[in-house]
Amino acid sequence: MDFKFSSRVPNVDNDVVGEILKVAGDPEIISFAGGLPAPELFPVKEMHEAADKVFEKHGAEALQYTAAIGNPHLRELIVERMQTNKEVTTTVDNVCITTGSEQSIDLVAKMMVDKGDVILVEKPTYLCALDVFRSYGAKVVGVDMDEEGMKMDALDEKLSEYPDTKFIYTIPNFQNPTGRTMTAERRAKMVELAEAHGVTILEDDPYGEIRYSGVAVPPVKHFDKNGTVVYMNTFSKILAPGMRLGWIVADKKFIDMFVVMKQSADLHSDNLSQFIVAQYMEDNDLDKHIKAISDVYYERASLMLKEIDEQFPAGVKHSNPEGGMFIWVEVPGNVNTMDLFNNCVKHNVAFVPGEPFYPDEVIPGTFRMNFSNMKADQIHEGVRRMAAAIDEMMN
Amino acid sequence: MDFKFSSRVPNVDNDVVGEILKVAGDPEIISFAGGLPAPELFPVKEMHEAADKVFEKHGAEALQYTAAIGNPHLRELIVERMQTNKEVTTTVDNVCITTGSEQSIDLVAKMMVDKGDVILVEKPTYLCALDVFRSYGAKVVGVDMDEEGMKMDALDEKLSEYPDTKFIYTIPNFQNPTGRTMTAERRAKMVELAEAHGVTILEDDPYGEIRYSGVAVPPVKHFDKNGTVVYMNTFSKILAPGMRLGWIVADKKFIDMFVVMKQSADLHSDNLSQFIVAQYMEDNDLDKHIKAISDVYYERASLMLKEIDEQFPAGVKHSNPEGGMFIWVEVPGNVNTMDLFNNCVKHNVAFVPGEPFYPDEVIPGTFRMNFSNMKADQIHEGVRRMAAAIDEMMN
Repeated sequence: MDFKFSSRVPNVDNDVVGEILKVAGDPEIISFAGGLPAPELFPVKEMHEAADKVFEKHGAEALQYTAAIGNPHLRELIVERMQTNKEVTTTVDNVCITTGSEQSIDLVAKMMVDKGDVILVEKPTYLCALDVFRSYGAKVVGVDMDEEGMKMDALDEKLSEYPDTKFIYTIPNFQNPTGRTMTAERRAKMVELAEAHGVTILEDDPYGEIRYSGVAVPPVKHFDKNGTVVYMNTFSKILAPGMRLGWIVADKKFIDMFVVMKQSADLHSDNLSQFIVAQYMEDNDLDKHIKAISDVYYERASLMLKEIDEQFPAGVKHSNPEGGMFIWVEVPGNVNTMDLFNNCVKHNVAFVPGEPFYPDEVIPGTFRMNFSNMKADQIHEGVRRMAAAIDEMMN
Repeated sequence: MDFKFSSRVPNVDNDVVGEILKVAGDPEIISFAGGLPAPELFPVKEMHEAADKVFEKHGAEALQYTAAIGNPHLRELIVERMQTNKEVTTTVDNVCITTGSEQSIDLVAKMMVDKGDVILVEKPTYLCALDVFRSYGAKVVGVDMDEEGMKMDALDEKLSEYPDTKFIYTIPNFQNPTGRTMTAERRAKMVELAEAHGVTILEDDPYGEIRYSGVAVPPVKHFDKNGTVVYMNTFSKILAPGMRLGWIVADKKFIDMFVVMKQSADLHSDNLSQFIVAQYMEDNDLDKHIKAISDVYYERASLMLKEIDEQFPAGVKHSNPEGGMFIWVEVPGNVNTMDLFNNCVKHNVAFVPGEPFYPDEVIPGTFRMNFSNMKADQIHEGVRRMAAAIDEMMN
């Protein structure tokens, strides 16, 4: 039958990202397009031990419904981590467990955005966030960024230009897609500007703890004394994404409404997985595990940067991330990276073209490369193939 | 700070249901207000064994991201069950795993409903579905029902009255809140009417397999030859709700779009739990387990009905469910059941008043009682307390 879909439904005839991922899934292709953590680093044995304990001690409870706000013990452990690892002081009443960051973004958008409302984002930014924001009718406006993150003079200008801004969406650490990190000064300034304009900040911090060089910068939330910042994080990159568990930290008034929205979305997040992760954190040193992940990603990032420097043509620029999972590349000469993508696929290598990361005006000649789930030989060979394809396009 | 919420946000100053559940959570109170399965019946040992196997055989895979449509093996098992237990012939490409029924309802509403669109529902119906539909701006219109489910002449009338109807939402088996089951004739007729009007049917079947008397009726989906029916079910009532896993079965065109919407909501449902449930189904006889649940619920329902007949005042009517978790009670004399609720709380017993289940016009003097998670002594004592409170209100 012909279904009468709503206006929220995206135009799937124009699903560039879906097409890219489909091509990138071809086993012949070395794909730098994904964003998957390295599965060989998952603590399978430790998670199994944690699951055993949960079934033995809390079996029926973990299989029953629970409160939408989430497992109290897991929220306590998150409160502790927010203090020790993030310099953010909070309470269990300010923490809600979510079914991963994608849900956090979706529910915040649903509860904040009416058709035509403005959301300010880094230019470029996480493309799935753009899709979610648009599904609620938001007008997404890009704010210029440089190597030090979103530019505060540009933000100030946009806040004045769009007084109906509902929130600023930022990924301050090892940003997706650029890998860049915002300076502490700009974070403090962002809070100041948001407060002056009465605008909320949605801080997305999935990669913050995957730091392998440089010095940690406290989150934007650290500089917030008035509940302006809604902070979100996830276990996907520091532990395992398959369990779909994330969390938000926010003002109590915000959390109360968020919990109502979450209840309408999926009642609560997987209770068994919440118990298992809490047990894992109780019995293991999560920081040590994150250090092990970071060490491997450091090797992979360093190798990819070295190969890019050696093999890509002169004039190609790239970000130098101190953590996270992505490198951002800029090719001179207004190269259309969708065309470059198609040419790379002929060379059996893939990446994500820059276009879909841009909320409005597109800066040509940019693309994202992922290294977290790539072995050394794949990095070496994949960059060699890409270099050949770029050479063809530039000459 | 003052948050600028969207128009989708419900009025929580008027959160009747929240208040009811809060009161009902008081340990002094015998609560027939909930809708929880009996946790003592969860197959904890078998689920633990299944989890062990998953960690041993598929550990890293189960902890990694997966496709939004869900675990292929679990979808195969669902296809088999749809055939053997539901007389519905389908394929894995027509099945999408969801994060429970609440998510299925939410995503179908999001992808179908624009502000002002009409959804036709049984009068009364599942109150959380009403909340979700309204959050997308739907105009929800009630269709009269009797002991045999939604009335087809009334449906035909409403379909003609509201040509902009997006879908009909129905719970054909042991309906929430009434416990009633729609006849096979009406199910076939519903498909016929929906097709004549070009309207989709959303069939919600969480309780269908919890049948303890009478003869099973095939789902509405069974009568559908043209993709008119979107069928949804869940593991919450037949296995365990804590894992938040449900599924939908629909036309391929619908599934393709649903998967896009799901990806924006939470990327995919908990992968570890999907593996565990598939392994459980592989190693155990789920039908035998459901029979054991149904036997216990039959005892509890029978006891509650007997106590109601013996203790409630003359003139009180109730449904006679052949399965599920709820009994629907009608008190004569236009009793306001919110007032009755408050009086019952004074007697340390609770239920859910009928009002919030009605989409539009409210029929006074009705309420819902749950028996699935109540032991015999609680049923006996709780009904006795309610009878005393009803007596006071009616005299």
